[in-house]
Amino acid sequence: MNYPSQLIENAVNEISKLPGIGKKTALRLTLHLLKREEPQTRTLADALLAMRTQTRFCSRCHNISDGELCNICSSPKRDPSLLCVVVDTRDVLAIENTSQFNGTYHVLGGIISPLEGIGPADLNIESLLSRIGDEEVKEVILALNPTMEGDTTAFYLQKKLKPTGVRISTIARGVPIGGDLEYADEVTLGRSIVSRVAYD
Amino acid sequence: MNYPSQLIENAVNEISKLPGIGKKTALRLTLHLLKREEPQTRTLADALLAMRTQTRFCSRCHNISDGELCNICSSPKRDPSLLCVVVDTRDVLAIENTSQFNGTYHVLGGIISPLEGIGPADLNIESLLSRIGDEEVKEVILALNPTMEGDTTAFYLQKKLKPTGVRISTIARGVPIGGDLEYADEVTLGRSIVSRVAYD
Repeated sequence: MNYPSQLIENAVNEISKLPGIGKKTALRLTLHLLKREEPQTRTLADALLAMRTQTRFCSRCHNISDGELCNICSSPKRDPSLLCVVVDTRDVLAIENTSQFNGTYHVLGGIISPLEGIGPADLNIESLLSRIGDEEVKEVILALNPTMEGDTTAFYLQKKLKPTGVRISTIARGVPIGGDLEYADEVTLGRSIVSRVAYD
Repeated sequence: MNYPSQLIENAVNEISKLPGIGKKTALRLTLHLLKREEPQTRTLADALLAMRTQTRFCSRCHNISDGELCNICSSPKRDPSLLCVVVDTRDVLAIENTSQFNGTYHVLGGIISPLEGIGPADLNIESLLSRIGDEEVKEVILALNPTMEGDTTAFYLQKKLKPTGVRISTIARGVPIGGDLEYADEVTLGRSIVSRVAYD
């Protein structure tokens, strides 16, 4: 592709380094910014830079944070005895969005995946174990994706957490609420029968 | 959505102002940048800013340009007597990519669309007419999208260009090369029969 301007080419190349964005989309976004007023691009560039250079990871739960501790860890309203283990900040956001959880989080920063060369040492597992020793954690909820990597990671964590004597649980798996039995995949439906819940 | 950090929220909001990017994708891109090294975000922000603040429009053809005249207008290899009228820079790039055109361009900067409130006065039509008067243009090729807006714009331009006596043509429309007659839509197929081309 011949670009009419070197500056356009640079912008397209940089944008297309983002995941899921190819050269064509990058060009569309570039041309969109060119059409808009200059302050929009300036605000975007500033927001990206501030986000990357000024945020850090919460020293306790490894969630993204503006300061030393994240909003959740520093809130007196949250229950520190309930710890929810998730893969990344996206999962924290998803669970926060439900307003059903009042405990704190621990962000692993990844998932065990031999194919991608990610082992337990690459994840925030040591700090999870030391939190359980230091803080008064009563229960650890494993909220990992129901995939092979998620199950592997959950299995590894269970093995590591067992000696601490903490209660370990996992989020419920089954047919989604509002879903249709007919269209549920057979693995989910099969597991939802095996792990059926008795009416109290 | 509750974001763990104000800086993240700002970045997500700014990214999601781009067309075709919602809050979820914006968050995904933000988290991607957070995972990568700081220089990547810095380079991206710089490239966006440089692209927006340092590029301008070619004073002759309104294509995007690093200087007063774009690479195409300033090239001695291009034929200035052949003028291809397109909607925006993307179309210039698409035609350049074919390596089949050796003339110069005129970028309208939009298309006549009463629904979106875009009229002839919003487009670079006056400068097109004055170019035909000033430069030695022999033929104007209308390379507009085969849509209602494109046809309206082409009709308007034909009316305006007729008094100048310049030769006016349009890009050929028909069944795409490599396409299958069976799967061509009926409008395209119908038009390709009506505007059939005789073997010489």
